[in-house]
Amino acid sequence: MISLAELQRRIDAGDLSADAAIAQSLEATSAHEKSIGAFVCRDESLRAQSAGPLRGIAVGIKDIMDTAEFPTEMGSPIYRGFRSRGDAAVVMMLKQAGASIVGKTTTTAFASIDPTPTLNPHNHGHTPGGSSSGSAAAVAAGMIPLALGTQTGGSVIRPASFCGVAAIKPSYRLLPTVGVKCYSWTLDTVGLFAAGVDDVARGLSAMTGRPELLLPPDIPTPRIGVVTQDFAGAPDASGGEALRIATRAVEKAGASARALDLPEIFAEAWRAQPIVQEFEAHRALAWEYREHYAQMAPLLRAKLDESRNTPPVAYDEAIKTANRARQALEELFDEVDMLLTLSAPGAAPRGLGSTGDARYNRLWTLMGVPCVNVPAHIADGDLPVGVQIIARYGADAAALAAARFVEDALRRQ
Amino acid sequence: MISLAELQRRIDAGDLSADAAIAQSLEATSAHEKSIGAFVCRDESLRAQSAGPLRGIAVGIKDIMDTAEFPTEMGSPIYRGFRSRGDAAVVMMLKQAGASIVGKTTTTAFASIDPTPTLNPHNHGHTPGGSSSGSAAAVAAGMIPLALGTQTGGSVIRPASFCGVAAIKPSYRLLPTVGVKCYSWTLDTVGLFAAGVDDVARGLSAMTGRPELLLPPDIPTPRIGVVTQDFAGAPDASGGEALRIATRAVEKAGASARALDLPEIFAEAWRAQPIVQEFEAHRALAWEYREHYAQMAPLLRAKLDESRNTPPVAYDEAIKTANRARQALEELFDEVDMLLTLSAPGAAPRGLGSTGDARYNRLWTLMGVPCVNVPAHIADGDLPVGVQIIARYGADAAALAAARFVEDALRRQ
Repeated sequence: MISLAELQRRIDAGDLSADAAIAQSLEATSAHEKSIGAFVCRDESLRAQSAGPLRGIAVGIKDIMDTAEFPTEMGSPIYRGFRSRGDAAVVMMLKQAGASIVGKTTTTAFASIDPTPTLNPHNHGHTPGGSSSGSAAAVAAGMIPLALGTQTGGSVIRPASFCGVAAIKPSYRLLPTVGVKCYSWTLDTVGLFAAGVDDVARGLSAMTGRPELLLPPDIPTPRIGVVTQDFAGAPDASGGEALRIATRAVEKAGASARALDLPEIFAEAWRAQPIVQEFEAHRALAWEYREHYAQMAPLLRAKLDESRNTPPVAYDEAIKTANRARQALEELFDEVDMLLTLSAPGAAPRGLGSTGDARYNRLWTLMGVPCVNVPAHIADGDLPVGVQIIARYGADAAALAAARFVEDALRRQ
Repeated sequence: MISLAELQRRIDAGDLSADAAIAQSLEATSAHEKSIGAFVCRDESLRAQSAGPLRGIAVGIKDIMDTAEFPTEMGSPIYRGFRSRGDAAVVMMLKQAGASIVGKTTTTAFASIDPTPTLNPHNHGHTPGGSSSGSAAAVAAGMIPLALGTQTGGSVIRPASFCGVAAIKPSYRLLPTVGVKCYSWTLDTVGLFAAGVDDVARGLSAMTGRPELLLPPDIPTPRIGVVTQDFAGAPDASGGEALRIATRAVEKAGASARALDLPEIFAEAWRAQPIVQEFEAHRALAWEYREHYAQMAPLLRAKLDESRNTPPVAYDEAIKTANRARQALEELFDEVDMLLTLSAPGAAPRGLGSTGDARYNRLWTLMGVPCVNVPAHIADGDLPVGVQIIARYGADAAALAAARFVEDALRRQ
């Protein structure tokens, strides 16, 4: 993979020009794109900007985000050839930090669950996950050092886990969703994929102009709560193994890691998440669903068919449950600095029939808390499996530092 | 003005066909549009839908909301001729309730403060207010029974006050902003303009599928807190007079109306609102500001120039202040059912140099609480002045019922 941090160091030191860094990404992309299929469209004559912390960094943008220079097709024939007038807010944040937009990455239709043709770079017989399929795969294949995705259920953390890359789903609204196709306004969150935790932190810090998001020189030892999310069912063997490996590693590195039983309100919130998600999707995608029903992707359409009669009162109750759980989670974080849990049930499923299961992600998206994926284990078939580090709402710097602690502990094993 | 409730009754009773109701709005629009200039574009051969509670209701849509059948130009040459692919969520809510979209109403550029050419129907020498200028004016002139606007500072309640129409800015996110051009994601709220409170309630109830928003047959007598918002400065004579008249009327109607001094945290939140608004606008409008600086409307551009160096930490503090004030407001509503306050400093200013001042609105937009304008007074120059009824977050039905109480009390004076 291409490390953003390493590129920054070489560019800053004058060992590499920003244009050469971009050229390197273009070359790597050309080399791998044919076998992976991570992009919808690309700028093959991309140039670097001359200034900014992300100069020389080629970034892939999930194709539900508006871009003035590329079509935005939402992974759906309904938006074939659609041109937005401007750039999404997060695209402008990248440009203003000096980055270059290399192209649009594949997305499941409207960031839902119908798979794209993108292959998992670690094993072409498996899905890269979704819905941010192309962004995760492009970083994993070493094409580009940074990519943007979005998560409504588990669309950033899950593909990152399947593809063996670091990723952050920041606190809700740390990154604006302006110009990003909405599925659920309470849940949709823009996230970043990169080679490692430091790379992700540098990307997020540069985009937001928040230096406090950079990793500190000395990473503190976090108090860790290990959470198995039993309400979501049991994981696969490989998912359980990844969590055990990470737990052993952080204990060996000197952290206390105690098993936490989440109170019942979290199981309720976990059950409430799909109600919020689909109720809002019926409003956000009303035009597509009503006017282009025949062209809707089949799995998404079936999900919308199923949830079409959810009454407002059920939605209101789900929102209230979420608010109670957020309160309870605040209190939980008085006892621990981070939660360590599964990023996905296990390694990427075989084939391209499914993008995997968001059941270990959806609670945390509803909570709005920062979540980071760190690769922890390689399962049969050379398939990566990650673990998820979660911190308090708004504590994105703490989440990144804790994730770095876990990443370090796993490396030193 | 055309009463939505009256049209519904006549259509339901079979006294008027839905198509005849639409034809009546088209005719009224043709008659007044030349002198008022409320529309950017219109469908002059509009037909009614055959079913739904809003069949026969012609609705005007503020031109920052996506519409598949009309261009969406944001009040700015930067978006000249822009066609969205689909309809904004609120436009689909109207269509699914049976309404017909008659056209796009004028908006200040990006719903900011640069005036449109629209005139106040009550006195052509005065502004109709903004940013939802065309929507307020079209209802006030009797062209259409219902129109949508948005409020970030005071862009629904203020023009409603200046134009002498009822309007609601509902609780934050009761109506989705999907497909509505963003200025500030923490503040932007879609609102409705109609002839009276019952008309507004019927529109909102039909759009959301929430029958509880309809007015109850017996309107309860609310406990009223009268608020002068001294931190926002003194009102004009006509604004003060409107509040006095409304206070006297509700007391005469049997309600208790006591003056409430808002605690200091509300003054702090009032000062925090522009920080939130402009910080987010710099991200929401980054593409327009960076790539089309020369074409930006001058008052908006000056505002963005002024606020361009706001650091993230100032924004974070403003958000924390808002959260503390929301908590305090919840407690305040244990003592009273509604707040009665100014909708605007006074009657519409003369000329088209300004759309007026949002200083009595911006706190409530930041609080996310439902606000309703009710016309209360006619000032010199035949200019209407409204008062603002505010209820607890989520209590939109209570806000509408309380506003109806005030409206009734004023009529019975």
